[in-house]
Amino acid sequence: MPKLRKKTQEKRIKPELGGGFRDYGSGDAILRQRLLEKIHKTFEDFGFDPMETPAVERTEVLLGGEKESGKIIFNVRGSKEKKSDLSLRFDLTVPLARFLAVNPEIPKPFKRYQIGNVWRGESPQAGRYREFLQADLDIAGASSTDADAEIIAVIWKTFKNLGLSKFIIKINNRKVLNGLPQYAGFPEKKLPELLRLVDKKEKIGEEALKKELKKVFKEKVAAKIWEIIAISGDTKTRLIKARETLRGNAAAEEGINELIEIARNLNTAGVLPENWEIDYSVARGLGYYTGSVFETYLTDAKEFGSVASGGRYDFLTVPFTGQKLPTVGGSIGVDRLYAVFEKLNLLKKKQTSVKVLILNLLPELKKEYLELAQVMRAANINTSFYLGDDRAFQAQLAYAVKKEIPYVVILGENESKRSTVTVKNLVTREQKEIPKEKIVEYFKR
Amino acid sequence: MPKLRKKTQEKRIKPELGGGFRDYGSGDAILRQRLLEKIHKTFEDFGFDPMETPAVERTEVLLGGEKESGKIIFNVRGSKEKKSDLSLRFDLTVPLARFLAVNPEIPKPFKRYQIGNVWRGESPQAGRYREFLQADLDIAGASSTDADAEIIAVIWKTFKNLGLSKFIIKINNRKVLNGLPQYAGFPEKKLPELLRLVDKKEKIGEEALKKELKKVFKEKVAAKIWEIIAISGDTKTRLIKARETLRGNAAAEEGINELIEIARNLNTAGVLPENWEIDYSVARGLGYYTGSVFETYLTDAKEFGSVASGGRYDFLTVPFTGQKLPTVGGSIGVDRLYAVFEKLNLLKKKQTSVKVLILNLLPELKKEYLELAQVMRAANINTSFYLGDDRAFQAQLAYAVKKEIPYVVILGENESKRSTVTVKNLVTREQKEIPKEKIVEYFKR
Repeated sequence: MPKLRKKTQEKRIKPELGGGFRDYGSGDAILRQRLLEKIHKTFEDFGFDPMETPAVERTEVLLGGEKESGKIIFNVRGSKEKKSDLSLRFDLTVPLARFLAVNPEIPKPFKRYQIGNVWRGESPQAGRYREFLQADLDIAGASSTDADAEIIAVIWKTFKNLGLSKFIIKINNRKVLNGLPQYAGFPEKKLPELLRLVDKKEKIGEEALKKELKKVFKEKVAAKIWEIIAISGDTKTRLIKARETLRGNAAAEEGINELIEIARNLNTAGVLPENWEIDYSVARGLGYYTGSVFETYLTDAKEFGSVASGGRYDFLTVPFTGQKLPTVGGSIGVDRLYAVFEKLNLLKKKQTSVKVLILNLLPELKKEYLELAQVMRAANINTSFYLGDDRAFQAQLAYAVKKEIPYVVILGENESKRSTVTVKNLVTREQKEIPKEKIVEYFKR
Repeated sequence: MPKLRKKTQEKRIKPELGGGFRDYGSGDAILRQRLLEKIHKTFEDFGFDPMETPAVERTEVLLGGEKESGKIIFNVRGSKEKKSDLSLRFDLTVPLARFLAVNPEIPKPFKRYQIGNVWRGESPQAGRYREFLQADLDIAGASSTDADAEIIAVIWKTFKNLGLSKFIIKINNRKVLNGLPQYAGFPEKKLPELLRLVDKKEKIGEEALKKELKKVFKEKVAAKIWEIIAISGDTKTRLIKARETLRGNAAAEEGINELIEIARNLNTAGVLPENWEIDYSVARGLGYYTGSVFETYLTDAKEFGSVASGGRYDFLTVPFTGQKLPTVGGSIGVDRLYAVFEKLNLLKKKQTSVKVLILNLLPELKKEYLELAQVMRAANINTSFYLGDDRAFQAQLAYAVKKEIPYVVILGENESKRSTVTVKNLVTREQKEIPKEKIVEYFKR
């Protein structure tokens, strides 16, 4: 187009990404796809069905769940519009609550999963991203702790299916923390601040948290808080200790009883004890959790923070319907998990899924090349036909090597006369001439 | 949380979607997922690898491809930012051009596909959506028409793999249209207007287009334009007629020769002649196409417009690098295609992928239920364990029926004693008591 050609003289546009955004080239995308397949396969084994909501929602709806999130939201505005009431979703939970409010007829329990991006409109900073891929699963309309335990069991099974073994799911119940004002003797209104503080424990460490608690609370109060959130030992010990210490504290007792039921279910469902523990310091920052809460850390890569988290949020539909709907869910941070796989070298990255490159050597043999490609593709062998401008044999071979395609198929004059093809393995450098009609068989061995 | 509980008294938030956005509940999402699996599988058979770019790009980059698009763009702004240089992508092609400009070292030809949403910031109108799912595939660094033909062949094979047979891919070459000013005798600068007009042919029909041409061009000019764009007959006739009529018109001749090569490749690659044709009226609205262009219509559902389109755009990297990069690509409008499948009833929608619901009848048998679920899931049978609050047998059965789950597994006191389970088929209403250890075998028949 003449219009575009003229641009050579025009000012160049920097081919840059916006701050906090990134590309995933083929090597990364292939691996991420493999992770996602395992994740959604596991979710479906457990009876969760997919669901999709749009990336853009009414801002009012997004803030309905939790006002604090407004600070980190991305507003979206059509270029002809003066003002905007739309924003990009910052999680997949508030959109689910909106969906449930609008579709009250859906049979409950409703078990759904959604895999999609979420966006955070924070200022870009080195190493902090503003677009994340999350895999969420939720059970709406189930108040039994069987549902809480199932969410945790699915997360566990997903991690196992991803080949991970060194991880720990730390489980708590908000009700235990809700019992702390009464137990430790501080005003109810200071609870949110306490939740924010203990939420930082994995990041800043026990000693730093201890200090921070002492800054905010009186020494005696801080000590009583510490007494609970630092309870250690095996699962049984942790449950018994907390129950004894908090006896008579209604909220906390309810929370501990729920933890006992969840622990029992996890054992029955075969969730390995080495992969989960009760931790009374787990709080989850978000305001909407009402019961169980959990975070998941990779023991070899704690610096990545929690890679899967969730909990029970029975009141999230209240702003929309005025009625509570008992719901529990979990969310896997796929991008974060992917970063862990990369850092720990847990999966071998490959640049391409192409198995075979058919070289494009002689124009008069193009018909044979295309027919060959057709046969291979019909047999589900990922096959590329060389389409580059450099038609020299060496150039095409070099291309296959650079792309890390494992095999090339050579069909020249001699092969054509003999109705054969030469298959060259670019890893072992071996090559072999085989009858043309045996080609699928050769690759299907 | 007390904060949320208070909201019952507060003003309610309407659980509404933004105009032009929509949800896909499980029934839709399951089907869409099946479409997507077939699409990406076919792309991979042909040697295309996945790639991902972010939803948000710098506005300047997005407009680099084509200024007109600015009118329909969605701006994105972090809530603390005064102004914004970011927008949501309106297609997947401009981001690819940006990616290629930034990563010049990538081995060429680079064959990639990307499946993702794009957004259009137009004013919401009934039936017009502002978020679309697209599946794009492109070959960068290949100037041969073999690449153009391959893109069309992949689109064809994808549609065939989706079970479609009644569709037609209409193929043209921009160079033929670029030859029209000289042939029909009108100034070069009127060409963009002509492209916009002929682009409307499928929508408004031949007669209306004829009239519109006469409004814009002198009668003699309009007649000569019509003579070319209305060429009919079989493929051979269309090619010969155009070649004869436009002989000596350098641009047009080059275009026709390219069409001849593409036609030859399509035949060799086994693309059925009933599914494609040369149509000199195909223009594609976008400014960036430089060679072949194509549109795909479903013969039973023309009202949906083109469901897959594309072409060659050799200059799209020029605004970024100052250098052309021969590239050809195609794009399937997944949402539009899905709407067609729905309208023509081509796929049976199912509400759930769950095959079996294990009823949750007796608390003391929970261990058995959970163990059973574990065994089934390990055998890849999508299994749900009833988690609802209503524990009555009839309520649980009714839930399975409403959810259209085909089987329930009943394990009561008697079954437990006998180490059996009763499997009830909710479609045929048959039920059968089988030994517990035979359950996987039963469902794997």
